[in-house]
Amino acid sequence: MSEGLPEPVLVVGTGLLGTSLGLALRRRGVEVLLTDRNPEQVRTASGLGAGHAYTGGPVGLVVVAVPPDHVGAEIARALAETDAVVTDVGSVKTAPLRELDGVAGTERYAGGHPMAGSERSGPLAATPTLFDGRPWAVTPHSGSSPAATTAVLALAEAAGASVVRLSPEEHDAAVARTSHLPHLLSVLVAGRLADAPVDHLALSGQGVRDVTRVAGGDPALWQQIVTGNAAAVAGLLTQVRDQLDVLIDAVATGDRDSLGEILQRGVDGTRAIPGKHGGPLRPTVSVFVSVPDHPGELARLFADAGASDVNIEDVRIDHDPARETGLVELLVDETRADHLHTALGQRGWVTHR
Amino acid sequence: MSEGLPEPVLVVGTGLLGTSLGLALRRRGVEVLLTDRNPEQVRTASGLGAGHAYTGGPVGLVVVAVPPDHVGAEIARALAETDAVVTDVGSVKTAPLRELDGVAGTERYAGGHPMAGSERSGPLAATPTLFDGRPWAVTPHSGSSPAATTAVLALAEAAGASVVRLSPEEHDAAVARTSHLPHLLSVLVAGRLADAPVDHLALSGQGVRDVTRVAGGDPALWQQIVTGNAAAVAGLLTQVRDQLDVLIDAVATGDRDSLGEILQRGVDGTRAIPGKHGGPLRPTVSVFVSVPDHPGELARLFADAGASDVNIEDVRIDHDPARETGLVELLVDETRADHLHTALGQRGWVTHR
Repeated sequence: MSEGLPEPVLVVGTGLLGTSLGLALRRRGVEVLLTDRNPEQVRTASGLGAGHAYTGGPVGLVVVAVPPDHVGAEIARALAETDAVVTDVGSVKTAPLRELDGVAGTERYAGGHPMAGSERSGPLAATPTLFDGRPWAVTPHSGSSPAATTAVLALAEAAGASVVRLSPEEHDAAVARTSHLPHLLSVLVAGRLADAPVDHLALSGQGVRDVTRVAGGDPALWQQIVTGNAAAVAGLLTQVRDQLDVLIDAVATGDRDSLGEILQRGVDGTRAIPGKHGGPLRPTVSVFVSVPDHPGELARLFADAGASDVNIEDVRIDHDPARETGLVELLVDETRADHLHTALGQRGWVTHR
Repeated sequence: MSEGLPEPVLVVGTGLLGTSLGLALRRRGVEVLLTDRNPEQVRTASGLGAGHAYTGGPVGLVVVAVPPDHVGAEIARALAETDAVVTDVGSVKTAPLRELDGVAGTERYAGGHPMAGSERSGPLAATPTLFDGRPWAVTPHSGSSPAATTAVLALAEAAGASVVRLSPEEHDAAVARTSHLPHLLSVLVAGRLADAPVDHLALSGQGVRDVTRVAGGDPALWQQIVTGNAAAVAGLLTQVRDQLDVLIDAVATGDRDSLGEILQRGVDGTRAIPGKHGGPLRPTVSVFVSVPDHPGELARLFADAGASDVNIEDVRIDHDPARETGLVELLVDETRADHLHTALGQRGWVTHR
């Protein structure tokens, strides 16, 4: 059991998120029941230790963990069929709320959205650590009862997450900006690569790979997410189109001042993203190391880096497009870079900065 | 000396690229001379071993390695003041060529562009390995002599790079698509973060960090690059605006088919980027590992991964925003993922996929 969390917890939908939540709660000894329109998935999730199959009876908290399109209907059903607190883990929060207009018992509903996921899906991809330390937006609406909100806060904490409390409208504006807009612009950049001549793509470097990585995400899922947050997303896309018009004009007319302002605003934006552990961005610098592309070489590098007592903040491997070597970029606190540089050099690594 | 490379090589501009080129050529015993409008930079580059200060006399090949705005003028000067082959390492190729219209001796000029760089600049950031295995676009114009082209090909090979031969026009179209467009769209996404409420940015995940990383690049340099490739960049930006209009309409009207087509085209684009070592993209899958955020823990993980004899294709560290743990994503060949998963689990790591 976990303080303030009404039990048993009924998880509706045993995909990646629902099964991971069951596993996370079971670590704390919380009683978890599972249901899914596909009984096979329940058997799998239950077999993994995420909880027991639901066969009816009273529950304390219902967590709706179904695909975006079905969240509103499942919340309404849970409110009608139980007298429990109801929450969900969907990526958008105002769209399901609109579907609850006129539904009885909505004071028992408070939404949620853990910022966790994976490129994989289904119960077999689940893990009890999925939510550990991740932000979990808890988004009570204006009619949510204090008891409902308290129960959802307790759920997020029991799952190991870090609570960020926002209204449904603020949440949707926030994810439109930090998730949906970046995804869609990444898609537009990647779309321009789809019909490029092969010898042009030979000049692709790490930059375009980073910018377009998220564009590889599942179109069917993103279709639902974007449609569910249409107003906020369309608003931001329109702002970007206005900026794009200014940019096109600046490029076409050679207006360097205007171009410089847009570029500087981008720099400012990258600095606004919160750093590691939620704190301010610590200044890091890169130490580059040439690494032969064989099993064990990365291990040797990290062993040597570890022996130098420098904490690696981030790692990138920039593969050499023509040879069997890779360039590894180690991001470290700027006060530690010289030390790491020297330490790796002494151990025979070819490094540069 | 290096086969087919006219010596001595005179490097004009001893910043990151010029100094790195000197260091790379010196590894092969090539005679390198250095000049820069700032004599202090020449002393630094020379002290690092990149070559000797140029004091006049005949040269075999001039490499112009100055900021984009000054490339055309420096090529013209080199053609006038020497009878050597002349090349450059600038990011755009048609703009300097236009400045050479009517200049005598342009048959001795063939352009080049090594796809290598760093977030740092200046001779102290230089390294002899900067070009190793990287693409080096060699871009003779229609009037380049075979001897000039051959000399520039020899230069790229002597520097350790992998030659991609393109016309100046093809080159500029290619980098507009694979570098300049991704940069500018990244800037527009980052620009939308600059004025976001702080509690909204608390929901930032790895996706937005990846999409916006390049937007942190030096605005003064990018101003010159984009202005120098204005026609190709403006053309692609206009294509993106047209797609953006379709996208905004699809989002605003809930046209899922149209949205789905755009999203699918993005997936296709990510698959068009050539894979590691220039070959087709090998299917990789992710193995996620929870790692305490202390020096030495990454070393222990990579040692254990290395002991399992699985080659790590790529690594990402997704920092936990609230706790002192990180989530490390290891990308491995899909046929090796189960083995790695099991091997790490046996060594006590908390893994999931």
